[in-house]
Amino acid sequence: MASVITLAQLNGASREEFAHLLDGTYEHSPWIAMRAWERRPFSTLAALKQALVATVRDSSREEQLQLIRSHPELAGKAMVAKTLTAESTNEQGKAGLTQCTPAEFDLIQSLNARYNEKFGFPFILAVRGPRGAGLGKRAIIEAFQRRVNNHPDFEFAEALRNIHRIAEIRLDDKFGTEPTLGHQVWDWAEALAQHSDPGFAEQGQLTVTYLTDAHLAVTRTLVDWMKSECGFDEVSIDAVGNVVGVYHGTDPNAHRLMTGSHFDTVRNGGKYDGRLGILVPMACVRELSRTGRRLPFGIEVVGFSEEEGQRYKAVFLSSGALTGQFDPAWLDQQDANGITMRQAMERAGLRPTDIASLKRNPARYLGFVEVHIEQGPVLNELDLPLGVVTSINGSVRYLGEVIGMASHAGTTPMGRRRDAAAAVAEWMVLVEQRAQAAPDLVATVGLLEVPGGSINVVPGRCRFSLDVRSTTDPVRDACASDILSALQAICDRRGLSFRIEETMRAAAAPSHPAWQQRWERAVGSLGLPVFRMPSGAGHDAMKLHDVMPQAMLFTRGENAGISHNPLESTNSHDIDLTIKAFQHLLSDLSASAA
Amino acid sequence: MASVITLAQLNGASREEFAHLLDGTYEHSPWIAMRAWERRPFSTLAALKQALVATVRDSSREEQLQLIRSHPELAGKAMVAKTLTAESTNEQGKAGLTQCTPAEFDLIQSLNARYNEKFGFPFILAVRGPRGAGLGKRAIIEAFQRRVNNHPDFEFAEALRNIHRIAEIRLDDKFGTEPTLGHQVWDWAEALAQHSDPGFAEQGQLTVTYLTDAHLAVTRTLVDWMKSECGFDEVSIDAVGNVVGVYHGTDPNAHRLMTGSHFDTVRNGGKYDGRLGILVPMACVRELSRTGRRLPFGIEVVGFSEEEGQRYKAVFLSSGALTGQFDPAWLDQQDANGITMRQAMERAGLRPTDIASLKRNPARYLGFVEVHIEQGPVLNELDLPLGVVTSINGSVRYLGEVIGMASHAGTTPMGRRRDAAAAVAEWMVLVEQRAQAAPDLVATVGLLEVPGGSINVVPGRCRFSLDVRSTTDPVRDACASDILSALQAICDRRGLSFRIEETMRAAAAPSHPAWQQRWERAVGSLGLPVFRMPSGAGHDAMKLHDVMPQAMLFTRGENAGISHNPLESTNSHDIDLTIKAFQHLLSDLSASAA
Repeated sequence: MASVITLAQLNGASREEFAHLLDGTYEHSPWIAMRAWERRPFSTLAALKQALVATVRDSSREEQLQLIRSHPELAGKAMVAKTLTAESTNEQGKAGLTQCTPAEFDLIQSLNARYNEKFGFPFILAVRGPRGAGLGKRAIIEAFQRRVNNHPDFEFAEALRNIHRIAEIRLDDKFGTEPTLGHQVWDWAEALAQHSDPGFAEQGQLTVTYLTDAHLAVTRTLVDWMKSECGFDEVSIDAVGNVVGVYHGTDPNAHRLMTGSHFDTVRNGGKYDGRLGILVPMACVRELSRTGRRLPFGIEVVGFSEEEGQRYKAVFLSSGALTGQFDPAWLDQQDANGITMRQAMERAGLRPTDIASLKRNPARYLGFVEVHIEQGPVLNELDLPLGVVTSINGSVRYLGEVIGMASHAGTTPMGRRRDAAAAVAEWMVLVEQRAQAAPDLVATVGLLEVPGGSINVVPGRCRFSLDVRSTTDPVRDACASDILSALQAICDRRGLSFRIEETMRAAAAPSHPAWQQRWERAVGSLGLPVFRMPSGAGHDAMKLHDVMPQAMLFTRGENAGISHNPLESTNSHDIDLTIKAFQHLLSDLSASAA
Repeated sequence: MASVITLAQLNGASREEFAHLLDGTYEHSPWIAMRAWERRPFSTLAALKQALVATVRDSSREEQLQLIRSHPELAGKAMVAKTLTAESTNEQGKAGLTQCTPAEFDLIQSLNARYNEKFGFPFILAVRGPRGAGLGKRAIIEAFQRRVNNHPDFEFAEALRNIHRIAEIRLDDKFGTEPTLGHQVWDWAEALAQHSDPGFAEQGQLTVTYLTDAHLAVTRTLVDWMKSECGFDEVSIDAVGNVVGVYHGTDPNAHRLMTGSHFDTVRNGGKYDGRLGILVPMACVRELSRTGRRLPFGIEVVGFSEEEGQRYKAVFLSSGALTGQFDPAWLDQQDANGITMRQAMERAGLRPTDIASLKRNPARYLGFVEVHIEQGPVLNELDLPLGVVTSINGSVRYLGEVIGMASHAGTTPMGRRRDAAAAVAEWMVLVEQRAQAAPDLVATVGLLEVPGGSINVVPGRCRFSLDVRSTTDPVRDACASDILSALQAICDRRGLSFRIEETMRAAAAPSHPAWQQRWERAVGSLGLPVFRMPSGAGHDAMKLHDVMPQAMLFTRGENAGISHNPLESTNSHDIDLTIKAFQHLLSDLSASAA
């Protein structure tokens, strides 16, 4: 390993020196550093990485392919052929691939062959993984098996993303740096993920639903960390099971910044959905406390006990309790085992009678901010670690069915059909076109089925769902209205009938401009491009939006941003940047409050 | 009832006399007869009916609505209000509606109200039914409950069809005539339908699969009727269980006309699919035998034991046996209970070793004709009792799946989706357009499903089927090729992959021109328009096509031509016309053979 380099060195270097200093960051591809040199100076290491990424993005597809092909095959054949570069050997060694059994080598060789045949380039995986500590053999083989089924375009981009991730870790080695705060939050998330509901824990799946034993274990762990590791001044569990940690301002009675997210999960969910938004501000408070700093305002970090609506139908019950929107009728809802919410609360030692008192007085708060993993592919695809949320989308959902007339597929001429599925298909094309026609609008037909269909029967019925979301309610409603009119027109023209039922509606929550700008400044201060985007999913901030200004920050998700899935992931570098952004927001707020 | 009238009287009548003679045929609508008068002279009663039907078809929608509204409400309210016309009272009385219980009257009144509210006209049902003998209360109520759910356009046409059916029966009364041969075949079909497989018989469902007890009972019944009622000279059961009846020509060694169809059924099928094609020529032979007539050729009527492929995968095994296409490997196929075909044959007393000898010498045959219920909506919709088949369509079937990437419906922007269902929808629109672009071509996506879909997830997979049929193989193949190319192009553009598997392929069987013309002359001789159409479904004639000239005749199906369904139906008038057409074909053939 070369001796440690600095940004000052790089910023002052000639093109050749620059490339020399960064030698080995990208496998056999010095042209990347040569070109990135033109983007000097770099205010942060993150800015340097962005410049390298941008250089590759701006290069030709042929150059990108060359970059990918510069990498050796993963283990197996490559190991046998002894053609690995030193770095690659080192990285693959860290991942334990040198201890493969013969059967594992055979499997990897076979996957290498299939992969190469399908894509025309070697399988690239950042084997040091999201924590930089190395992936296990099983994780590597599973990633390989999964990715060999990807579409070539996607896999090409995924290979480049892995190359950037390898470079990111190599740069840490060169700079003698590590994302220590990111590692801290990563490790916290891992530790929380050890608790999972019965039936899921045994299969290594993460499921933590409201007030189960696993849920209460997470609660206790958060309380413990807030108190003993982070130095919060007050830590409590409230009447709906929220964990509330307060770090006083210089004046303990000062206004507070509220932040937080939820720690419950969907069934077989991910480790970061919600939890990142609790752990990131915890890491910030830990740094303040460790260095004995007080801000001109208090920080109230809420670990919301419930957001996903998995055990009971009452979604956002925890954040709703803080805004006075907890409906006491919910207490009589039963879970799948017939246990009412009231019973579950009492067993957990909570006092439902105190719920009404949880309502916050907005006058005591500066506002609410929430950090969340994106749960979408946008940042991942754009190679951006952070995104600033402009609005939490308003949404509306429908379930519907078109009714035509089932008839013989061979004997019913095209012009005499009442084909319910053909009508839905025609409509789906319009749904897609209509949603594409406006920015920050999405419409999805997620459920689609010809019930009891046969290969030789013209569909007499076709069931579907529709989910429409937009940054503003009028845009959403105009789209939904157009889409429903289109369905009416198609059914009228085709001589079909339909029924459709609205099953859910939620109002949009646009970010407060001043608070959104604070996130924008925070992201810019890290040397990163400021990227603005809507939140397609709902979040606790939607509820707080009803009573105080709010704005959210998104952290990039790996694996195409998949969420509500065990593959949901981030990495400690992105988490570290998220923490630094949060710290900047706190400084920014301190300056304006001062 | 007025005294009997004749065609000669009508053809010679003035417009006013004509309308007077037909008074009451159409409820309070003398304008129909007044206008139909212009279409004189009428060669047959069927031609007169067609003229009346054509008059209504040519009238305005407002006039048609007036005609429908001239009819009283069914029973209930109408009975109470005593507003029924004499005929209606008589017809409803025959249907037993005068003996309704109070609960039944209430139900009918409620249905009348719903129906009127939805359609704006009264529910019209030809309550004397397809046999003219009157429908039972249960059948009437079921029809009502079914039809109130129809699309308004369809129901409007269905009301007119019922009005024409009422008129048809009233004309029988006026002319003092009855479709006696049609009744005969109707009654035979009813008697055969008494036999049904265990598990279906108990629920009143018709299922007769290969070599079950019910199947063997049908076999014995056919043999018995052929011998004792129809006067066939030779009747036998062959090695695959076909019932073969031969009516000798003047010379017992003369060439034969082969005809017939299958008597097995699908599960919960109809009474006419296949069986009509055995019973119609049986009725013709019965008439020949009853009057002691011999033709210059023999008639071989085959009741094929198997066509539907329900018990074993070997479809068309019976007609295939006659063309030398029985694959001995089929004998080892097992049914759902593990009984091999060989075992089933042996239990039924058949000798599988004799199957090879069933192969016919085509030189001994003039050709093959087959009568079949249409199994489609075309004739029903065009108000035509008979259709001449131009070709049995060639078909090809596929099962496929598009693979995209599942992602969050809220957080994945439209432009970054790999939505498998949206791709299939776009493709289905092209499938429909491509099939519409050529005559006598159909393409159907009958199976459609997003497996494991969710309302809030962009579909990562979408499964579908494709069934393409056309009168000629090149037209079918060009369509299938275009459709598959379109799928490839859509998936390429959208960054998706797909897999598709061909599961079935059958060659087209165009009718032999001279034989098709015989059917055309037969239909024309009845005073009916000659309507040519392809057969979308496969039939035994497809097999015989490989060794001898063939042509088929279709009989209109009621209930939009539904088939493979208990609602499959015809009526004794249409059957009677089918028999008369068959008799004409026999005469025609006698004349050319003489």
